[in-house]
Amino acid sequence: MSNLILRNVRPLGGAAADILIRDGVIAEIGQIAEQPGIATEDGQGAILWPGLIDAHTHLDKTTWGMDWHENNRAAILRERIDFERENRLPLGLDPHRQSMRHAIGLAAHGASHIRSHVDIDPTHGLRLVEGVQQTREKLRGIIDIEIVAFPQSGVMVAPGTVELLDEALANGCEVLGGIDPCGIDRDPKGQLDLLFALAGKHGVPIDIHLHEAGELGAFTMELIFERVRANGMQGKFVISHAFALGMNDHLRVGKLIEEIADLDIGIATTGAPSATVPSVKRLREAGVRVGAGCDGIRDTWGPWGLPDMMDRARIIGMKNGVRSDIDLRHMLDIVSQGGADLMRLEGYGVTPGCKADFTLLQGQTIGQAVVQPSIPPLVVKTGRVIARAGKCIVDMP
Amino acid sequence: MSNLILRNVRPLGGAAADILIRDGVIAEIGQIAEQPGIATEDGQGAILWPGLIDAHTHLDKTTWGMDWHENNRAAILRERIDFERENRLPLGLDPHRQSMRHAIGLAAHGASHIRSHVDIDPTHGLRLVEGVQQTREKLRGIIDIEIVAFPQSGVMVAPGTVELLDEALANGCEVLGGIDPCGIDRDPKGQLDLLFALAGKHGVPIDIHLHEAGELGAFTMELIFERVRANGMQGKFVISHAFALGMNDHLRVGKLIEEIADLDIGIATTGAPSATVPSVKRLREAGVRVGAGCDGIRDTWGPWGLPDMMDRARIIGMKNGVRSDIDLRHMLDIVSQGGADLMRLEGYGVTPGCKADFTLLQGQTIGQAVVQPSIPPLVVKTGRVIARAGKCIVDMP
Repeated sequence: MSNLILRNVRPLGGAAADILIRDGVIAEIGQIAEQPGIATEDGQGAILWPGLIDAHTHLDKTTWGMDWHENNRAAILRERIDFERENRLPLGLDPHRQSMRHAIGLAAHGASHIRSHVDIDPTHGLRLVEGVQQTREKLRGIIDIEIVAFPQSGVMVAPGTVELLDEALANGCEVLGGIDPCGIDRDPKGQLDLLFALAGKHGVPIDIHLHEAGELGAFTMELIFERVRANGMQGKFVISHAFALGMNDHLRVGKLIEEIADLDIGIATTGAPSATVPSVKRLREAGVRVGAGCDGIRDTWGPWGLPDMMDRARIIGMKNGVRSDIDLRHMLDIVSQGGADLMRLEGYGVTPGCKADFTLLQGQTIGQAVVQPSIPPLVVKTGRVIARAGKCIVDMP
Repeated sequence: MSNLILRNVRPLGGAAADILIRDGVIAEIGQIAEQPGIATEDGQGAILWPGLIDAHTHLDKTTWGMDWHENNRAAILRERIDFERENRLPLGLDPHRQSMRHAIGLAAHGASHIRSHVDIDPTHGLRLVEGVQQTREKLRGIIDIEIVAFPQSGVMVAPGTVELLDEALANGCEVLGGIDPCGIDRDPKGQLDLLFALAGKHGVPIDIHLHEAGELGAFTMELIFERVRANGMQGKFVISHAFALGMNDHLRVGKLIEEIADLDIGIATTGAPSATVPSVKRLREAGVRVGAGCDGIRDTWGPWGLPDMMDRARIIGMKNGVRSDIDLRHMLDIVSQGGADLMRLEGYGVTPGCKADFTLLQGQTIGQAVVQPSIPPLVVKTGRVIARAGKCIVDMP
């Protein structure tokens, strides 16, 4: 819990001001006099933004910092899952080391919070979760990590997984994951009934991967709506990806979005460039909470992605056909406040009383800060400078 | 026409070798002994690739290096065109200065050739073309610029344009452009008949913008096919964008691609993230020449884009759902050899006898070089080092 004076920054892109931080909390914004014993940093007129939120990633999967992983395999979802499960440890994908690299990269690029899905399957048990939990401990004070117990290989088709999810939720995972109840599990009723029962038992929210496109994904969403309503899980359910909301039927999508808004279901988008993705504008207009994530980066699934939420804001913005400055600002919102809304973070923002988690952004305007690739000059976590010019105070292992 | 020895590079990602350049041409690849009077550069094991080709851009439009251009206007194509035409000079968009900035940026990022569409309309006459022609002269030896006489505001709906196009082709523009004969000009037969007549008169190829989507674009393509055949323009026609080839009807698209291949029509794609775009894989499999371009960057139309063909290879690759190393290699091909094929460049490549135009790329493998944003350590044009670490020997004005 640090004290700090940050001079000459533009909070949320507004007029230049100083920020006084006491005990890791924003105490005052304005013209701040020298304070004995409090260090001062010069923000050099940069935009000050609350810490970026990666609301959907996979810290246990990346090959970041390892030799290049050649991939000339077929690209079928089920095969990708199976290849990764069978080869991740032989390939040297140590879950602790790799999650450290990934999370440090995100912190260095301005992120303050991560929601990471972490694979749980009968092959690895909770070993991957434990690796990420180690990382969470080591990076306490640098970046906050929330763990989703994620049945990547399926629930119904992977016997033993339910018991492992149960154990994970009893041992520090804050959220229950799920995956394509039709496409992967071939038993939507089976998986969804189990997930809702488990979430109810542990009193945790659910965040499910839904790659299912078109009418198949819409069908699964309807099954989810029924159960959210029946189990009183309004406000406690997130659909990640939600590719079905990108389908080419605007009336149908409109009806789905109405239900999503009505049930206060959140949407985590990654703006997957080659998939049909939800319109973030349409979701916002309907009042839906929308966060964003980098998803897996440079893993055995595919080569793309960077540990950088501003890069993700660009990808989502381009995919959504954003051109105006107002909409560019909204792209920055979904990788910050939007993610905080999805994760129900408290004390998030840039007003007195909020936690002093923020990043500086380069750019004449917010629009330019979003569009122009750059490195944050300074990242602050609970009042402490944790990265300068893209270099975190914790070295990558 | 320079002499140079470049040591320790990996031509096309293969084994390390040295390159001897004499009079701007690759003389020898292998182990090269010291040569008196010839300068030596150390490539430090980087991948050596032929100069990148921006086969579709707009050098006269960018705001690069100017104050941020706020844009909260409506996003209708016709309105974007009219706003730009009426405001570009009042906004300070000097065509010579801005095209210098744009082209120098491309050169610094490894490009050796540009095909630039340049606006011709009754408001500006040939003023914008003249600005880019000045840039072409100033950057001779740094980067080659080919100019497309481009009727951005339409042909039939902008009286006087035909005469200006005629004049431009008589005065150094190498290619005739066109734009959405239905969507913009409202008279497809009128525009296309005029374009083919003009191209025939001057003996130049045609490169037409075709944003028209779905069946409208397919209809225009059929009109183009008829005229390419009737006028013997096989191999001398490029369709830029070709969004209709991204429409959701694979059989219909297959028929169009067959005709495109049969008539040796080239396709220039920009991988527009929010549009339906052609599948580069499907085009390649059909034997179609495919090049790529950055399109307009940071202009009054929209904020996106960088003067960097490797960035564009990433955008096109993500949009096309590329995951494998083989397909990543193809992304690099379309921003290099593919563009050279489209522009019919001679002496292009990395074998003895080819022009010594190349860029070094960072990466363990070609896949990594495509995926990882980086700055080329060295760019060589006809044997002369014209940029180091992203800095061109010509300063941006």
